[in-house]
Amino acid sequence: MSEQRLKRLIALTRLVTMRPGTQWNLGDLGRRLSVAKSTLSEDLLVVKEALESYQLGRIDSHVGVSGGVTFSPLLDVERARQDVKEFIQDLTKPDRLTPDGFLYVTDLLFSPRRMEVMGDLLATVFHPLDVDAVATVETRGIPLALAAARALGVDMVLLRRDNRLSEGSSLSINYLSGSSRRVQSMSLARRAPVRGGRILFVDDFMQAGGTARAAQDLLGDFGAHVVGVGVLVATRDPAEKLVDDYRAILQWQRAEDGVGAVEPSAWVKALIGWEM
Amino acid sequence: MSEQRLKRLIALTRLVTMRPGTQWNLGDLGRRLSVAKSTLSEDLLVVKEALESYQLGRIDSHVGVSGGVTFSPLLDVERARQDVKEFIQDLTKPDRLTPDGFLYVTDLLFSPRRMEVMGDLLATVFHPLDVDAVATVETRGIPLALAAARALGVDMVLLRRDNRLSEGSSLSINYLSGSSRRVQSMSLARRAPVRGGRILFVDDFMQAGGTARAAQDLLGDFGAHVVGVGVLVATRDPAEKLVDDYRAILQWQRAEDGVGAVEPSAWVKALIGWEM
Repeated sequence: MSEQRLKRLIALTRLVTMRPGTQWNLGDLGRRLSVAKSTLSEDLLVVKEALESYQLGRIDSHVGVSGGVTFSPLLDVERARQDVKEFIQDLTKPDRLTPDGFLYVTDLLFSPRRMEVMGDLLATVFHPLDVDAVATVETRGIPLALAAARALGVDMVLLRRDNRLSEGSSLSINYLSGSSRRVQSMSLARRAPVRGGRILFVDDFMQAGGTARAAQDLLGDFGAHVVGVGVLVATRDPAEKLVDDYRAILQWQRAEDGVGAVEPSAWVKALIGWEM
Repeated sequence: MSEQRLKRLIALTRLVTMRPGTQWNLGDLGRRLSVAKSTLSEDLLVVKEALESYQLGRIDSHVGVSGGVTFSPLLDVERARQDVKEFIQDLTKPDRLTPDGFLYVTDLLFSPRRMEVMGDLLATVFHPLDVDAVATVETRGIPLALAAARALGVDMVLLRRDNRLSEGSSLSINYLSGSSRRVQSMSLARRAPVRGGRILFVDDFMQAGGTARAAQDLLGDFGAHVVGVGVLVATRDPAEKLVDDYRAILQWQRAEDGVGAVEPSAWVKALIGWEM
Protein backbone atom coordinates (compact mmCIF):
# COMPACT_ATOMS: atom_id res chain seq x y z
CA MET A 1 0.00 0.00 0.00
CA SER A 2 1.27 3.44 -0.88
CA GLU A 3 1.99 5.91 1.89
CA GLN A 4 -0.46 8.25 0.21
CA ARG A 5 -3.30 5.75 0.44
CA LEU A 6 -2.47 4.97 4.07
CA LYS A 7 -2.63 8.65 5.00
CA ARG A 8 -5.90 8.98 3.11
CA LEU A 9 -7.43 6.03 5.00
CA ILE A 10 -6.45 7.59 8.32
CA ALA A 11 -7.91 10.96 7.28
CA LEU A 12 -11.08 9.21 6.06
CA THR A 13 -11.40 7.41 9.41
CA ARG A 14 -11.18 10.67 11.31
CA LEU A 15 -13.64 12.47 9.03
CA VAL A 16 -16.32 9.79 8.98
CA THR A 17 -16.17 9.05 12.73
CA MET A 18 -16.01 12.64 13.99
CA ARG A 19 -19.75 13.26 13.76
CA PRO A 20 -21.74 10.19 14.71
CA GLY A 21 -25.11 10.04 13.02
CA THR A 22 -24.21 12.67 10.41
CA GLN A 23 -24.58 11.62 6.82
CA TRP A 24 -21.48 12.22 4.71
CA ASN A 25 -22.07 12.72 1.02
CA LEU A 26 -19.70 10.61 -1.09
CA GLY A 27 -19.14 13.42 -3.56
CA ASP A 28 -18.11 15.83 -0.80
CA LEU A 29 -15.85 13.26 0.84
CA GLY A 30 -14.22 12.42 -2.49
CA ARG A 31 -13.51 16.08 -3.28
CA ARG A 32 -12.22 16.57 0.24
CA LEU A 33 -9.74 13.70 -0.09
CA SER A 34 -9.03 14.27 -3.81
CA VAL A 35 -10.08 10.78 -4.78
CA ALA A 36 -12.54 9.24 -7.25
CA LYS A 37 -15.83 7.85 -5.96
CA SER A 38 -14.91 4.29 -6.88
CA THR A 39 -11.65 4.48 -4.92
CA LEU A 40 -13.47 6.14 -2.03
CA SER A 41 -15.96 3.26 -1.90
CA GLU A 42 -13.08 0.78 -1.64
CA ASP A 43 -11.47 2.90 1.09
CA LEU A 44 -14.74 3.07 3.03
CA LEU A 45 -14.99 -0.71 2.94
CA VAL A 46 -11.54 -1.02 4.49
CA VAL A 47 -12.39 1.50 7.24
CA LYS A 48 -15.73 -0.20 7.87
CA GLU A 49 -14.12 -3.62 8.28
CA ALA A 50 -11.38 -2.30 10.54
CA LEU A 51 -13.82 -0.44 12.83
CA GLU A 52 -16.09 -3.47 13.01
CA SER A 53 -13.27 -5.91 13.74
CA TYR A 54 -12.16 -3.73 16.68
CA GLN A 55 -15.80 -3.26 17.74
CA LEU A 56 -15.51 0.50 17.50
CA GLY A 57 -18.61 1.19 15.44
CA ARG A 58 -20.61 0.67 12.29
CA ILE A 59 -20.60 2.45 8.94
CA ASP A 60 -23.90 2.34 7.07
CA SER A 61 -24.32 3.22 3.42
CA HIS A 62 -27.32 5.08 2.03
CA VAL A 63 -28.26 4.78 -1.58
CA GLY A 64 -30.16 7.33 -3.63
CA VAL A 65 -29.53 10.77 -5.04
CA SER A 66 -27.59 12.01 -2.01
CA GLY A 67 -25.87 8.67 -1.45
CA GLY A 68 -23.62 8.73 1.57
CA VAL A 69 -22.39 7.05 4.71
CA THR A 70 -23.15 7.42 8.40
CA PHE A 71 -21.04 6.34 11.34
CA SER A 72 -22.66 4.87 14.48
CA PRO A 73 -20.24 4.36 17.37
CA LEU A 74 -20.29 1.17 19.34
CA LEU A 75 -19.91 1.54 23.07
CA ASP A 76 -16.22 1.57 23.98
CA VAL A 77 -16.63 -1.07 26.69
CA GLU A 78 -13.22 -0.81 28.34
CA ARG A 79 -13.26 2.94 28.50
CA ALA A 80 -16.88 2.89 29.70
CA ARG A 81 -16.05 0.52 32.57
CA GLN A 82 -13.17 2.74 33.63
CA ASP A 83 -15.24 5.93 33.35
CA VAL A 84 -18.24 4.52 35.26
CA LYS A 85 -15.96 3.33 38.05
CA GLU A 86 -14.25 6.71 38.28
CA PHE A 87 -17.60 8.53 38.16
CA ILE A 88 -18.99 6.52 41.09
CA GLN A 89 -15.85 7.23 43.10
CA ASP A 90 -16.18 10.97 42.44
CA LEU A 91 -19.91 10.94 43.11
CA THR A 92 -19.66 9.26 46.51
CA LYS A 93 -16.89 11.36 48.05
CA PRO A 94 -18.13 12.30 51.53
CA ASP A 95 -17.42 16.00 51.01
CA ARG A 96 -20.07 16.13 48.27
CA LEU A 97 -22.78 16.00 50.94
CA THR A 98 -24.27 19.42 51.70
CA PRO A 99 -25.44 20.27 55.24
CA ASP A 100 -29.01 19.73 53.98
CA GLY A 101 -28.32 16.19 52.83
CA PHE A 102 -28.06 16.85 49.09
CA LEU A 103 -25.20 15.67 46.93
CA TYR A 104 -23.34 18.47 45.14
CA VAL A 105 -22.90 17.03 41.64
CA THR A 106 -23.23 19.99 39.26
CA ASP A 107 -19.51 19.93 38.44
CA LEU A 108 -19.72 16.25 37.44
CA LEU A 109 -22.89 16.73 35.39
CA PHE A 110 -21.31 19.58 33.40
CA SER A 111 -18.13 17.72 32.55
CA PRO A 112 -18.36 16.84 28.83
CA ARG A 113 -15.79 14.08 29.26
CA ARG A 114 -17.77 12.44 32.09
CA MET A 115 -21.16 12.78 30.39
CA GLU A 116 -19.91 11.38 27.09
CA VAL A 117 -19.75 7.81 28.33
CA MET A 118 -23.15 8.20 30.02
CA GLY A 119 -24.66 9.44 26.77
CA ASP A 120 -23.08 6.50 24.95
CA LEU A 121 -24.65 4.08 27.46
CA LEU A 122 -28.12 5.59 26.95
CA ALA A 123 -27.61 5.62 23.17
CA THR A 124 -26.64 1.96 23.24
CA VAL A 125 -29.73 0.84 25.13
CA PHE A 126 -32.19 3.19 23.36
CA HIS A 127 -30.80 2.90 19.83
CA PRO A 128 -33.33 0.20 18.84
CA LEU A 129 -36.23 2.57 19.64
CA ASP A 130 -35.31 4.75 16.66
CA VAL A 131 -36.02 8.08 18.37
CA ASP A 132 -36.40 11.41 16.58
CA ALA A 133 -35.23 13.60 19.45
CA VAL A 134 -34.07 13.63 23.06
CA ALA A 135 -35.94 15.87 25.52
CA THR A 136 -35.03 17.09 28.98
CA VAL A 137 -36.28 19.73 31.38
CA GLU A 138 -33.80 22.40 32.40
CA THR A 139 -31.19 22.49 33.83
CA ARG A 140 -28.99 19.77 35.22
CA GLY A 141 -30.03 17.00 32.83
CA ILE A 142 -29.01 19.04 29.78
CA PRO A 143 -25.40 17.80 29.37
CA LEU A 144 -26.48 14.15 29.61
CA ALA A 145 -29.38 14.73 27.21
CA LEU A 146 -27.05 16.45 24.74
CA ALA A 147 -24.51 13.62 24.98
CA ALA A 148 -27.24 11.05 24.31
CA ALA A 149 -28.65 13.12 21.44
CA ARG A 150 -25.20 13.47 19.92
CA ALA A 151 -24.55 9.73 20.15
CA LEU A 152 -27.96 9.01 18.60
CA GLY A 153 -27.46 11.62 15.87
CA VAL A 154 -30.60 13.61 16.78
CA ASP A 155 -31.44 17.04 18.19
CA MET A 156 -32.56 17.94 21.70
CA VAL A 157 -35.84 19.47 22.82
CA LEU A 158 -35.66 21.74 25.86
CA LEU A 159 -38.58 21.85 28.27
CA ARG A 160 -38.41 25.12 30.21
CA ARG A 161 -39.23 25.58 33.89
CA ASP A 162 -41.28 28.67 33.05
CA ASN A 163 -42.54 30.12 29.82
CA ARG A 164 -40.42 32.77 28.21
CA LEU A 165 -41.49 35.80 26.27
CA SER A 166 -38.62 35.09 23.87
CA GLU A 167 -40.10 31.76 22.80
CA GLY A 168 -43.53 32.92 21.75
CA SER A 169 -46.62 31.11 23.02
CA SER A 170 -46.18 27.86 24.89
CA LEU A 171 -48.03 25.03 26.63
CA SER A 172 -47.41 24.49 30.35
CA ILE A 173 -48.10 21.75 32.85
CA ASN A 174 -48.03 21.77 36.65
CA TYR A 175 -47.14 18.66 38.59
CA LEU A 176 -46.14 17.46 42.04
CA SER A 177 -42.46 16.78 42.30
CA GLY A 178 -41.65 13.81 44.51
CA SER A 179 -38.20 14.98 45.47
CA SER A 180 -39.02 18.55 46.44
CA ARG A 181 -42.60 17.76 47.52
CA ARG A 182 -43.89 20.89 45.87
CA VAL A 183 -45.70 21.98 42.76
CA GLN A 184 -43.37 22.42 39.82
CA SER A 185 -44.12 23.41 36.27
CA MET A 186 -42.64 22.90 32.85
CA SER A 187 -43.50 24.42 29.50
CA LEU A 188 -42.71 23.99 25.85
CA ALA A 189 -42.86 26.56 23.07
CA ARG A 190 -45.57 25.86 20.50
CA ARG A 191 -42.90 26.36 17.84
CA ALA A 192 -40.78 23.46 19.16
CA PRO A 193 -40.44 21.01 16.26
CA VAL A 194 -41.63 17.85 18.02
CA ARG A 195 -45.03 17.04 16.48
CA GLY A 196 -45.53 13.33 15.93
CA GLY A 197 -41.99 12.56 17.02
CA ARG A 198 -40.66 9.60 18.97
CA ILE A 199 -38.96 11.15 22.00
CA LEU A 200 -36.41 9.85 24.50
CA PHE A 201 -36.80 11.74 27.79
CA VAL A 202 -33.56 12.11 29.74
CA ASP A 203 -32.89 13.54 33.19
CA ASP A 204 -30.06 13.57 35.71
CA PHE A 205 -32.05 12.26 38.64
CA MET A 206 -35.22 10.30 39.34
CA GLN A 207 -36.87 9.72 42.68
CA ALA A 208 -40.63 9.29 42.29
CA GLY A 209 -40.69 9.86 38.53
CA GLY A 210 -43.07 12.82 38.61
CA THR A 211 -40.95 14.93 36.28
CA ALA A 212 -40.72 12.16 33.67
CA ARG A 213 -44.47 11.61 33.80
CA ALA A 214 -45.19 15.33 33.44
CA ALA A 215 -42.85 15.45 30.43
CA GLN A 216 -44.74 12.51 28.88
CA ASP A 217 -48.02 14.38 29.35
CA LEU A 218 -46.75 17.70 28.03
CA LEU A 219 -45.08 16.16 24.98
CA GLY A 220 -48.24 14.12 24.40
CA ASP A 221 -50.16 17.40 24.07
CA PHE A 222 -47.87 18.17 21.11
CA GLY A 223 -48.67 14.84 19.46
CA ALA A 224 -45.24 13.50 20.37
CA HIS A 225 -44.63 10.15 22.05
CA VAL A 226 -42.16 9.51 24.84
CA VAL A 227 -40.94 6.06 23.83
CA GLY A 228 -38.18 5.82 26.43
CA VAL A 229 -36.99 7.37 29.70
CA GLY A 230 -33.33 7.36 30.69
CA VAL A 231 -31.78 8.87 33.82
CA LEU A 232 -28.30 9.07 35.25
CA VAL A 233 -29.20 8.25 38.87
CA ALA A 234 -32.39 6.75 40.29
CA THR A 235 -33.01 6.26 43.99
CA ARG A 236 -33.88 2.74 45.07
CA ASP A 237 -36.79 4.17 47.08
CA PRO A 238 -39.55 4.33 46.14
CA ALA A 239 -39.17 1.15 44.07
CA GLU A 240 -42.41 1.98 42.24
CA LYS A 241 -41.97 5.04 40.03
CA LEU A 242 -44.68 7.08 38.33
CA VAL A 243 -43.45 5.95 34.91
CA ASP A 244 -43.80 2.30 33.91
CA ASP A 245 -40.53 1.84 32.23
CA TYR A 246 -37.24 3.66 32.57
CA ARG A 247 -33.53 2.96 32.46
CA ALA A 248 -31.25 4.37 35.14
CA ILE A 249 -27.51 4.15 34.62
CA LEU A 250 -26.82 4.23 38.37
CA GLN A 251 -28.85 3.15 41.39
CA TRP A 252 -28.53 5.13 44.60
CA GLN A 253 -29.28 3.57 47.98
CA ARG A 254 -29.53 6.54 50.30
CA ALA A 255 -28.19 6.28 53.83
CA GLU A 256 -29.30 8.06 56.99
CA ASP A 257 -25.71 9.09 57.59
CA GLY A 258 -23.36 9.82 54.73
CA VAL A 259 -23.66 9.48 51.01
CA GLY A 260 -24.92 5.91 50.84
CA ALA A 261 -24.11 3.44 48.10
CA VAL A 262 -24.15 3.91 44.31
CA GLU A 263 -23.81 1.10 41.80
CA PRO A 264 -24.56 0.57 38.12
CA SER A 265 -27.94 -0.91 37.17
CA ALA A 266 -28.00 -4.52 36.00
CA TRP A 267 -28.24 -3.56 32.28
CA VAL A 268 -25.16 -1.35 32.60
CA LYS A 269 -23.23 -4.07 34.44
CA ALA A 270 -24.05 -6.47 31.62
CA LEU A 271 -23.02 -3.96 28.93
CA ILE A 272 -19.67 -3.04 30.42
CA GLY A 273 -18.73 -6.35 32.07
CA TRP A 274 -18.82 -5.01 35.63
CA GLU A 275 -17.15 -7.12 38.28
CA MET A 276 -16.68 -5.44 41.65
CA MET B 1 1.87 -3.30 5.01
CA SER B 2 -0.05 -6.20 6.53
CA GLU B 3 -3.82 -6.04 6.60
CA GLN B 4 -3.56 -6.49 10.36
CA ARG B 5 -1.45 -3.38 10.77
CA LEU B 6 -3.73 -1.37 8.51
CA LYS B 7 -6.79 -2.30 10.58
CA ARG B 8 -4.88 -1.46 13.74
CA LEU B 9 -3.95 1.99 12.41
CA ILE B 10 -7.58 2.69 11.56
CA ALA B 11 -8.71 1.56 15.03
CA LEU B 12 -5.95 3.65 16.63
CA THR B 13 -7.10 6.71 14.65
CA ARG B 14 -10.65 6.29 15.88
CA LEU B 15 -9.61 5.72 19.49
CA VAL B 16 -7.19 8.62 19.79
CA THR B 17 -9.42 11.15 17.98
CA MET B 18 -12.72 10.24 19.67
CA ARG B 19 -12.09 12.28 22.81
CA PRO B 20 -10.29 15.52 22.04
CA GLY B 21 -8.17 16.75 24.92
CA THR B 22 -8.26 13.41 26.75
CA GLN B 23 -4.89 11.92 27.55
CA TRP B 24 -4.50 8.31 26.37
CA ASN B 25 -2.03 6.21 28.32
CA LEU B 26 0.30 4.29 26.01
CA GLY B 27 0.13 1.15 28.14
CA ASP B 28 -3.69 1.12 28.00
CA LEU B 29 -3.71 1.77 24.24
CA GLY B 30 -1.14 -0.98 23.67
CA ARG B 31 -3.15 -3.53 25.66
CA ARG B 32 -6.30 -2.42 23.89
CA LEU B 33 -4.77 -2.98 20.44
CA SER B 34 -2.64 -5.98 21.50
CA VAL B 35 0.60 -4.37 20.44
CA ALA B 36 3.95 -3.60 22.08
CA LYS B 37 4.70 -0.04 23.16
CA SER B 38 7.47 0.36 20.60
CA THR B 39 5.18 -0.64 17.73
CA LEU B 40 2.43 1.59 19.12
CA SER B 41 4.82 4.56 19.08
CA GLU B 42 5.58 3.92 15.42
CA ASP B 43 1.86 3.61 14.65
CA LEU B 44 1.12 6.86 16.47
CA LEU B 45 3.72 8.64 14.37
CA VAL B 46 2.00 7.45 11.18
CA VAL B 47 -1.44 8.60 12.44
CA LYS B 48 0.00 11.92 13.59
CA GLU B 49 1.59 12.62 10.20
CA ALA B 50 -1.55 11.64 8.30
CA LEU B 51 -3.84 13.83 10.44
CA GLU B 52 -1.45 16.75 10.16
CA SER B 53 -1.03 16.41 6.41
CA TYR B 54 -4.83 16.54 5.97
CA GLN B 55 -5.04 19.39 8.52
CA LEU B 56 -7.41 17.39 10.70
CA GLY B 57 -5.64 17.87 14.02
CA ARG B 58 -2.58 17.47 16.18
CA ILE B 59 -1.35 14.61 18.35
CA ASP B 60 0.85 15.67 21.26
CA SER B 61 2.99 13.30 23.30
CA HIS B 62 3.46 13.61 27.05
CA VAL B 63 6.51 12.15 28.69
CA GLY B 64 6.75 11.00 32.30
CA VAL B 65 5.35 8.22 34.44
CA SER B 66 1.92 8.26 32.82
CA GLY B 67 3.28 8.98 29.35
CA GLY B 68 0.55 9.28 26.79
CA VAL B 69 -0.90 11.17 23.84
CA THR B 70 -3.62 13.78 23.42
CA PHE B 71 -5.51 14.69 20.27
CA SER B 72 -6.44 18.31 19.51
CA PRO B 73 -8.75 18.71 16.51
CA LEU B 74 -8.07 21.38 13.95
CA LEU B 75 -11.06 23.26 12.69
CA ASP B 76 -12.63 21.41 9.76
CA VAL B 77 -12.73 24.51 7.56
CA GLU B 78 -14.90 23.16 4.72
CA ARG B 79 -17.47 21.66 7.02
CA ALA B 80 -17.43 24.80 9.17
CA ARG B 81 -18.14 27.04 6.20
CA GLN B 82 -21.03 24.82 5.13
CA ASP B 83 -22.42 24.62 8.70
CA VAL B 84 -22.18 28.37 9.35
CA LYS B 85 -23.95 29.10 6.07
CA GLU B 86 -26.72 26.64 6.84
CA PHE B 87 -27.04 27.98 10.41
CA ILE B 88 -27.51 31.57 9.22
CA GLN B 89 -30.16 30.42 6.74
CA ASP B 90 -32.05 28.59 9.49
CA LEU B 91 -31.65 31.47 11.93
CA THR B 92 -33.04 34.12 9.61
CA LYS B 93 -36.17 32.33 8.40
CA PRO B 94 -38.98 34.88 8.75
CA ASP B 95 -41.22 32.46 10.68
CA ARG B 96 -38.72 32.45 13.55
CA LEU B 97 -39.89 35.92 14.55
CA THR B 98 -42.34 35.86 17.47
CA PRO B 99 -45.15 38.42 17.68
CA ASP B 100 -43.08 40.22 20.34
CA GLY B 101 -40.08 40.62 18.05
CA PHE B 102 -37.89 37.86 19.48
CA LEU B 103 -36.22 35.19 17.39
CA TYR B 104 -37.22 31.63 18.37
CA VAL B 105 -33.86 29.83 18.30
CA THR B 106 -34.01 27.29 21.13
CA ASP B 107 -34.25 24.38 18.69
CA LEU B 108 -31.09 25.52 16.90
CA LEU B 109 -29.17 26.13 20.13
CA PHE B 110 -30.00 22.62 21.40
CA SER B 111 -28.90 20.83 18.24
CA PRO B 112 -25.60 19.08 19.10
CA ARG B 113 -24.71 18.87 15.41
CA ARG B 114 -25.20 22.61 14.90
CA MET B 115 -23.41 23.65 18.08
CA GLU B 116 -20.39 21.43 17.43
CA VAL B 117 -18.99 23.65 14.71
CA MET B 118 -19.68 26.75 16.81
CA GLY B 119 -17.80 25.19 19.74
CA ASP B 120 -14.93 24.35 17.38
CA LEU B 121 -14.79 27.96 16.20
CA LEU B 122 -14.60 29.26 19.78
CA ALA B 123 -12.03 26.59 20.68
CA THR B 124 -9.89 27.61 17.70
CA VAL B 125 -9.80 31.28 18.62
CA PHE B 126 -9.49 30.77 22.40
CA HIS B 127 -7.09 27.82 22.39
CA PRO B 128 -4.01 30.06 22.86
CA LEU B 129 -5.46 31.40 26.14
CA ASP B 130 -4.95 28.02 27.81
CA VAL B 131 -8.21 28.06 29.78
CA ASP B 132 -9.01 25.74 32.69
CA ALA B 133 -12.78 25.77 32.26
CA VAL B 134 -15.67 27.23 30.27
CA ALA B 135 -18.47 28.99 32.18
CA THR B 136 -21.97 29.98 31.17
CA VAL B 137 -25.13 31.11 32.90
CA GLU B 138 -28.18 28.93 32.43
CA THR B 139 -29.87 28.07 30.15
CA ARG B 140 -29.62 28.67 26.44
CA GLY B 141 -25.85 29.11 26.25
CA ILE B 142 -25.22 25.66 27.76
CA PRO B 143 -24.96 23.60 24.55
CA LEU B 144 -22.48 26.06 22.99
CA ALA B 145 -20.47 26.22 26.23
CA LEU B 146 -20.36 22.42 26.42
CA ALA B 147 -19.28 22.15 22.78
CA ALA B 148 -16.47 24.67 23.37
CA ALA B 149 -15.44 22.90 26.60
CA ARG B 150 -15.39 19.56 24.82
CA ALA B 151 -13.24 20.91 21.99
CA LEU B 152 -10.86 22.53 24.50
CA GLY B 153 -10.73 19.36 26.64
CA VAL B 154 -11.95 21.10 29.82
CA ASP B 155 -15.01 21.02 32.07
CA MET B 156 -17.87 23.51 32.27
CA VAL B 157 -18.91 25.68 35.20
CA LEU B 158 -22.62 26.43 35.48
CA LEU B 159 -23.74 29.79 36.88
CA ARG B 160 -27.32 29.43 38.14
CA ARG B 161 -30.08 32.01 37.80
CA ASP B 162 -31.00 31.49 41.45
CA ASN B 163 -29.31 29.68 44.29
CA ARG B 164 -30.40 26.13 44.93
CA LEU B 165 -30.74 24.30 48.19
CA SER B 166 -29.24 21.26 46.47
CA GLU B 167 -25.94 23.03 45.83
CA GLY B 168 -25.13 24.15 49.36
CA SER B 169 -24.13 27.75 50.05
CA SER B 170 -23.44 30.03 47.13
CA LEU B 171 -22.41 33.54 46.15
CA SER B 172 -24.85 35.66 44.16
CA ILE B 173 -24.70 38.87 42.16
CA ASN B 174 -27.47 41.13 40.88
CA TYR B 175 -27.05 43.11 37.70
CA LEU B 176 -28.96 45.11 35.15
CA SER B 177 -29.57 43.17 31.97
CA GLY B 178 -29.42 45.33 28.86
CA SER B 179 -31.67 43.15 26.79
CA SER B 180 -34.53 42.69 29.24
CA ARG B 181 -33.94 46.04 30.98
CA ARG B 182 -34.50 44.48 34.37
CA VAL B 183 -32.53 43.28 37.36
CA GLN B 184 -31.26 39.75 36.90
CA SER B 185 -29.18 37.63 39.21
CA MET B 186 -26.74 34.79 38.94
CA SER B 187 -25.14 32.62 41.57
CA LEU B 188 -22.42 30.05 41.94
CA ALA B 189 -22.07 27.31 44.55
CA ARG B 190 -19.13 27.81 46.90
CA ARG B 191 -18.18 24.21 46.14
CA ALA B 192 -17.71 24.90 42.43
CA PRO B 193 -14.11 23.98 41.62
CA VAL B 194 -13.02 27.24 39.94
CA ARG B 195 -10.58 28.86 42.38
CA GLY B 196 -7.62 30.48 40.64
CA GLY B 197 -8.77 29.17 37.28
CA ARG B 198 -8.54 30.80 33.87
CA ILE B 199 -12.13 30.87 32.60
CA LEU B 200 -13.69 31.31 29.17
CA PHE B 201 -17.20 32.77 29.54
CA VAL B 202 -19.60 31.68 26.79
CA ASP B 203 -23.18 32.74 26.06
CA ASP B 204 -25.66 32.42 23.24
CA PHE B 205 -26.43 36.11 22.90
CA MET B 206 -24.92 39.48 23.75
CA GLN B 207 -26.57 42.85 23.50
CA ALA B 208 -25.10 45.26 26.05
CA GLY B 209 -22.77 42.73 27.68
CA GLY B 210 -24.19 43.04 31.19
CA THR B 211 -24.40 39.29 31.70
CA ALA B 212 -20.77 38.75 30.69
CA ARG B 213 -19.62 41.54 33.00
CA ALA B 214 -21.62 40.14 35.92
CA ALA B 215 -20.09 36.70 35.30
CA GLN B 216 -16.61 38.27 35.36
CA ASP B 217 -17.38 39.91 38.70
CA LEU B 218 -18.92 36.80 40.26
CA LEU B 219 -16.11 34.50 39.11
CA GLY B 220 -13.62 37.11 40.33
CA ASP B 221 -15.07 36.72 43.82
CA PHE B 222 -13.99 33.07 43.59
CA GLY B 223 -10.43 34.05 42.67
CA ALA B 224 -11.02 32.94 39.09
CA HIS B 225 -10.17 35.05 36.04
CA VAL B 226 -12.35 35.42 32.97
CA VAL B 227 -9.66 35.53 30.30
CA GLY B 228 -12.01 35.43 27.32
CA VAL B 229 -15.67 35.98 26.36
CA GLY B 230 -17.23 34.19 23.41
CA VAL B 231 -20.83 34.43 22.19
CA LEU B 232 -22.80 32.96 19.34
CA VAL B 233 -24.65 36.13 18.31
CA ALA B 234 -23.95 39.74 19.22
CA THR B 235 -26.12 42.64 18.17
CA ARG B 236 -24.37 45.43 16.27
CA ASP B 237 -26.08 47.94 18.58
CA PRO B 238 -24.87 49.11 20.98
CA ALA B 239 -21.40 48.97 19.42
CA GLU B 240 -19.85 49.62 22.84
CA LYS B 241 -20.37 46.63 25.13
CA LEU B 242 -19.85 46.45 28.89
CA VAL B 243 -16.93 44.05 28.44
CA ASP B 244 -13.74 45.27 26.77
CA ASP B 245 -13.02 42.28 24.67
CA TYR B 246 -15.24 39.54 23.32
CA ARG B 247 -15.58 37.37 20.27
CA ALA B 248 -18.96 36.90 18.61
CA ILE B 249 -19.31 34.22 15.96
CA LEU B 250 -22.21 36.04 14.30
CA GLN B 251 -23.22 39.71 14.11
CA TRP B 252 -26.87 40.61 14.05
CA GLN B 253 -28.10 43.84 12.53
CA ARG B 254 -31.66 44.11 13.78
CA ALA B 255 -34.35 45.53 11.53
CA GLU B 256 -37.52 47.42 12.40
CA ASP B 257 -39.47 44.96 10.27
CA GLY B 258 -38.46 41.36 9.96
CA VAL B 259 -35.48 39.40 11.16
CA GLY B 260 -32.73 41.70 9.92
CA ALA B 261 -29.31 40.60 8.71
CA VAL B 262 -26.91 38.08 10.26
CA GLU B 263 -23.35 37.54 9.10
CA PRO B 264 -20.16 35.99 10.50
CA SER B 265 -17.72 38.27 12.33
CA ALA B 266 -14.50 39.16 10.55
CA TRP B 267 -12.41 36.63 12.51
CA VAL B 268 -14.82 33.84 11.55
CA LYS B 269 -14.79 34.91 7.90
CA ALA B 270 -10.99 34.76 7.94
CA LEU B 271 -10.95 31.33 9.61
CA ILE B 272 -13.42 29.65 7.30
CA GLY B 273 -12.65 31.48 4.05
CA TRP B 274 -16.07 33.16 3.78
CA GLU B 275 -16.96 34.61 0.40
CA MET B 276 -20.59 35.61 -0.02
